[in-house]
Amino acid sequence: MSWEDYVRRVEPYVPGEQPNKARMIKLNTNENPYPPAPGVAAALKGIQDETLRLYPDPTAKKLVDALAERYQVSPSQVFVGVGSDDVLAMAFLTFFQSEKPLLFPDISYSFYKVWAELYRIPYECVPLDENFRIRPEDYRRENGGIIFPNPNAPTSLLLPLDEVEKIVAGSPDSVVIVDEAYIDFGGESALSLLPKYDNLLVVQTFSKSRSMAGMRIGYAIGSEKMIKAMMDVKYSFNSYTMNRTSIELGYEAVKDEAYFQETIAKVKATRERAAKRLAELGFHFPEPSANFIFAEHESVPAAELFQALREKDIYVRHFNGARVENFLRITIGTDEEMEELFAFLKEYLRK
Amino acid sequence: MSWEDYVRRVEPYVPGEQPNKARMIKLNTNENPYPPAPGVAAALKGIQDETLRLYPDPTAKKLVDALAERYQVSPSQVFVGVGSDDVLAMAFLTFFQSEKPLLFPDISYSFYKVWAELYRIPYECVPLDENFRIRPEDYRRENGGIIFPNPNAPTSLLLPLDEVEKIVAGSPDSVVIVDEAYIDFGGESALSLLPKYDNLLVVQTFSKSRSMAGMRIGYAIGSEKMIKAMMDVKYSFNSYTMNRTSIELGYEAVKDEAYFQETIAKVKATRERAAKRLAELGFHFPEPSANFIFAEHESVPAAELFQALREKDIYVRHFNGARVENFLRITIGTDEEMEELFAFLKEYLRK
Repeated sequence: MSWEDYVRRVEPYVPGEQPNKARMIKLNTNENPYPPAPGVAAALKGIQDETLRLYPDPTAKKLVDALAERYQVSPSQVFVGVGSDDVLAMAFLTFFQSEKPLLFPDISYSFYKVWAELYRIPYECVPLDENFRIRPEDYRRENGGIIFPNPNAPTSLLLPLDEVEKIVAGSPDSVVIVDEAYIDFGGESALSLLPKYDNLLVVQTFSKSRSMAGMRIGYAIGSEKMIKAMMDVKYSFNSYTMNRTSIELGYEAVKDEAYFQETIAKVKATRERAAKRLAELGFHFPEPSANFIFAEHESVPAAELFQALREKDIYVRHFNGARVENFLRITIGTDEEMEELFAFLKEYLRK
Repeated sequence: MSWEDYVRRVEPYVPGEQPNKARMIKLNTNENPYPPAPGVAAALKGIQDETLRLYPDPTAKKLVDALAERYQVSPSQVFVGVGSDDVLAMAFLTFFQSEKPLLFPDISYSFYKVWAELYRIPYECVPLDENFRIRPEDYRRENGGIIFPNPNAPTSLLLPLDEVEKIVAGSPDSVVIVDEAYIDFGGESALSLLPKYDNLLVVQTFSKSRSMAGMRIGYAIGSEKMIKAMMDVKYSFNSYTMNRTSIELGYEAVKDEAYFQETIAKVKATRERAAKRLAELGFHFPEPSANFIFAEHESVPAAELFQALREKDIYVRHFNGARVENFLRITIGTDEEMEELFAFLKEYLRK
């Protein structure tokens, strides 16, 4: 025997491509093409380096209070973490202790399966319908919890709020997590359902609509009981996760509502133009509600387009797997970036 | 049944006291009294806010390369994380999959037990001897892994390198983790043993000797095989943990060796004076090798002293539990802070 016999076995994983070229068009990881709110730059300059010697506030009170005010909830209903991945993993660990299976869509965020396996949570994938839609009635069965993104990724499809409510109401004895990483780009948040349902947890992130993927900030909002349970688990094994810069810069981002709305409006306007152009170029796609379009071309395979774009330093995302392998996930960039994409596609597709 | 029946049960935990008063002497969480290297302040001003919209480099290459150069190892031998708590938890998850018990000292860092329970790792606490010493021969038994801090916390006692080697050599089929959070303040690191032992993992942190507790940066150095195993586990469920500011500021801290040495020399000189004064005031303590002293008074109970100090806004740490409840853990502050502590103690103890 050797120590290597006791190493945890995992699928070796290669981190996603993060190209870093001076002249590239990066539409592959759903980042926001616009910088964070102007106050963030000022806050960065204002941080006193001598404060860095001290541990951060483990409760991240400044950031939590700002989020509570923005979303009109009590601070005791807000949990923050190192990106929504950290928040979601903590929620899995806290809430999904049942023997019954956790349910999530078969085409969805790939990490749900990973966390379920990590924490030995039984799970079942629920197939989307033939139009990539989540059908609430499919979740009306015995379960130990439910999670789905809304809008869904990588499809960009929105589930209307009344359908979300059917899922939450249909499983009052399970925690239902609505993963709203992309909700700000065009959907109604399930936050408005919180007063009615104490089994609902809404998770959002600073990585997309707030242009701060580089800072790793995510949060969950739910009933006080639920947030207390997550805090108890979190504090029991890692008290200090949000560093001082995340707390300060995150706070500034939340405070600037006007900039936030303006940035979202710009991304949505570009998305509308992009949808029109892609359709003209022969692409089909579900109606996009996130900051990306999930598009299939009428004649050219996605793998081929992916490679052709890559050679021109235009990066989009291509997934393997049944039903999705002929799609490209294209992040909405600036208008200029999208024009370059369309110009290339027009020539390549001879449209 | 209700969703609350499936919530993970943990000991509700109240985060440690982080007082924040204008006039206080904070000697309770082993922070460094000096600011980070001057380059850190410059780097903070130099971060371009527009880069924050992009995900950080998941490999944190800039920081990893700097650590590899500083410690004369290959970058493939370095793993970085969100504080050494994150790094240690990841090591537990990766390496301790045996049915045999993980061994660690009974008086030690309190989170070892927490992570073992979290990941369902069987464990046994090995008692320190009557002088709070780790005896290598006690670890010479069937085990699924070994971990201990060196210097130990909260005792501040150093285990000499040849004794550390006995433990590592004695369990070649287990991973042995030496948690060196405080090693820079007065011990020889086990890093020099790495060429001989592929089962050794050394964990260090930026929170103490590099004055950056507020940034949450820790790292592990070990054999390539070992670091690869940790990376595989980490990437399999959370690719992006180190944010952009941590990578940049951490890099600057590592590059300034002169400042690092100077700061450590100052803390050690203050510790020497403090040890002398505390002895004169009637305290007994194991020989300190970390940036704190673990002291028991000859006549006044620790709980009483703790309260009396607290009322004067002088914060030290007091632990409950057999054998340690009559000790105070006193962080080494600036000379001025220590003088205020001694002045108060002198008066209180009428010495």
